[in-house]
Amino acid sequence: MTLLVIEIKVPSHELVASQGLAPSLAALWPSYLAFVTSFLTVLVIWAHHHLIFGLIAKDDHPFLYWNGLLLLCVTFVPFPTALLAEYLLHADARVAANLYTGTFLAISLAFAALWRHASTKLLSDDASDARRSEARQITRQYRFGAPLYLGAFGVSFVSEAWSVAACLLLAVFFALWRSPATK
Amino acid sequence: MTLLVIEIKVPSHELVASQGLAPSLAALWPSYLAFVTSFLTVLVIWAHHHLIFGLIAKDDHPFLYWNGLLLLCVTFVPFPTALLAEYLLHADARVAANLYTGTFLAISLAFAALWRHASTKLLSDDASDARRSEARQITRQYRFGAPLYLGAFGVSFVSEAWSVAACLLLAVFFALWRSPATK
Amino acid sequence: MTLLVIEIKVPSHELVASQGLAPSLAALWPSYLAFVTSFLTVLVIWAHHHLIFGLIAKDDHPFLYWNGLLLLCVTFVPFPTALLAEYLLHADARVAANLYTGTFLAISLAFAALWRHASTKLLSDDASDARRSEARQITRQYRFGAPLYLGAFGVSFVSEAWSVAACLLLAVFFALWRSPATK
Amino acid sequence: MTLLVIEIKVPSHELVASQGLAPSLAALWPSYLAFVTSFLTVLVIWAHHHLIFGLIAKDDHPFLYWNGLLLLCVTFVPFPTALLAEYLLHADARVAANLYTGTFLAISLAFAALWRHASTKLLSDDASDARRSEARQITRQYRFGAPLYLGAFGVSFVSEAWSVAACLLLAVFFALWRSPATK
Repeated sequence: MTLLVIEIKVPSHELVASQGLAPSLAALWPSYLAFVTSFLTVLVIWAHHHLIFGLIAKDDHPFLYWNGLLLLCVTFVPFPTALLAEYLLHADARVAANLYTGTFLAISLAFAALWRHASTKLLSDDASDARRSEARQITRQYRFGAPLYLGAFGVSFVSEAWSVAACLLLAVFFALWRSPATK
Repeated sequence: MTLLVIEIKVPSHELVASQGLAPSLAALWPSYLAFVTSFLTVLVIWAHHHLIFGLIAKDDHPFLYWNGLLLLCVTFVPFPTALLAEYLLHADARVAANLYTGTFLAISLAFAALWRHASTKLLSDDASDARRSEARQITRQYRFGAPLYLGAFGVSFVSEAWSVAACLLLAVFFALWRSPATK
Repeated sequence: MTLLVIEIKVPSHELVASQGLAPSLAALWPSYLAFVTSFLTVLVIWAHHHLIFGLIAKDDHPFLYWNGLLLLCVTFVPFPTALLAEYLLHADARVAANLYTGTFLAISLAFAALWRHASTKLLSDDASDARRSEARQITRQYRFGAPLYLGAFGVSFVSEAWSVAACLLLAVFFALWRSPATK
Repeated sequence: MTLLVIEIKVPSHELVASQGLAPSLAALWPSYLAFVTSFLTVLVIWAHHHLIFGLIAKDDHPFLYWNGLLLLCVTFVPFPTALLAEYLLHADARVAANLYTGTFLAISLAFAALWRHASTKLLSDDASDARRSEARQITRQYRFGAPLYLGAFGVSFVSEAWSVAACLLLAVFFALWRSPATK
């Protein structure tokens, strides 16, 4: 959870002197958008991560590596977030949006790999039917993760703002849509 | 608890060269005030959060969303804190105080929503009388939270310093005043 | 433990261009000294804190307040640490050393108050003799904490470097000297 | 794990104005290299640390000191990481690489000392054969740690980039190579 601490820069005294504080704060909207989107995404990742850890009966070496890869990507998130906040209104916004959505695409791929390994190798042999059914529903749901984030990555080449909005919607979507078994 | 780490900026060498270190440090009083107020507020939030988690018998989906909203607001706190520290002595202090007290108002509303849901839906049916009585007293106490922070938000349009002082007093007040059942 | 993360500033390109990287790094020795001293002090605080939590049988309201006060002081430590690192070689070093040693003095007082309350009110009535004996020895040891840090604070008015060295020695001293019962 | 949060600096508007954002981000490759290398190294340290804590039956005073020393070195890691990211492409890169590899050498020595003490003094007398065998294999493996990092430190005097690559390879190597007993 501590990885969620994402800094928003206080506007400089020069900017505030020329424009006033309220307009300077309003001009920071890319920061707020990036902050909320990254916050919700990381929150959903932790929630699903927690769900996976509750389902598996053991861990093994490959699980630790996939988990380490996922953690590496999540730890990287503050950098593209700060980059997007700084450059979303800049001529070079495309590159920032590419990296931002690309990071989330990488996370969705690492998550898919982690779950694929966990669901095929680490469920206990005598798992209850409820657990197996829950695992199947998670598999069905996660199937959409990487393609959807690939879509957001594609959109980032066309419209930066829409690609970030897509990531925000995806985070809300995966927060709300959980398999019936976990309700 | 790690969310409590709020940075205070070391005064620049230019400032210290012209004014000396002691006066430069004294001039940082808005930083200390903002640091202590935010620290105590977040501390009280965690303590009450802990109390709620100890009372409920289960959680559900809406609980997770309200909890996520509360966490989002608390994670945001370092930004208005840094803003207030930077601009409390500035001509535009009003805006900084609005955002600072407004953030705490938002937290109190998220907390009220979280508790409303938890107290009506998530207490176990066979909760002991002591627990039910404690829950009722918490409900009575939390009824004052949002209106009081709304008051502090209102004061921020009249006097910035008094609105921050009000937030500090409210944090101390909610730290000291706990329902008899939890004593 | 996360409170121990104290930043050391990378030397600027201007400084490195004029002096070379190695001498620039060597000139950062006040940063290293402040980092190590603060790290060890906070480490000892957590270790003793852990010890107290292991001894008491319950907690109460005043315990939470003393504990909150201690946490507030510890959370503040990065600021005087950064200040000392920046100004130890400066004409105004005295003020920085005053604040640095003064913060540790405040911590030792908060710790003494926390332990006084815990040892007189929160040991269970049927504590074993071993526990009671351990508590008495901790009381004997903590008696030295505040006076020793008061001494370091006094030294900071005479020699900044020696006062920091005293804090470093005190941290090592309290790390090594634990009551026989906890050995 | 929170110690893994290592900041990468967003490129300045001046640099982006003159070169474009994509080339500015590409020029940050020393930051990415340093970030990934430090991340993986700290991850492996925590994993092995966890392994040691699972094997020992008790702790004692010297264990706490060696552990504190290891923690001090790990807490220091963000500084040489930031230094390397800033100066790897600079005329003074050697000094940065020396400090970077030297920090990891110090960590490997602290780890060796911690394990030497834990394996000779803190295994329970009636440890199972499986545990004793696992401990012997860890001893065999850790024998390579300090000499290999001494090698990387030596390489840093010849080629900065290769010495960092060596640290990256060592982290991967120690992540993949675990004693058969722990598989």
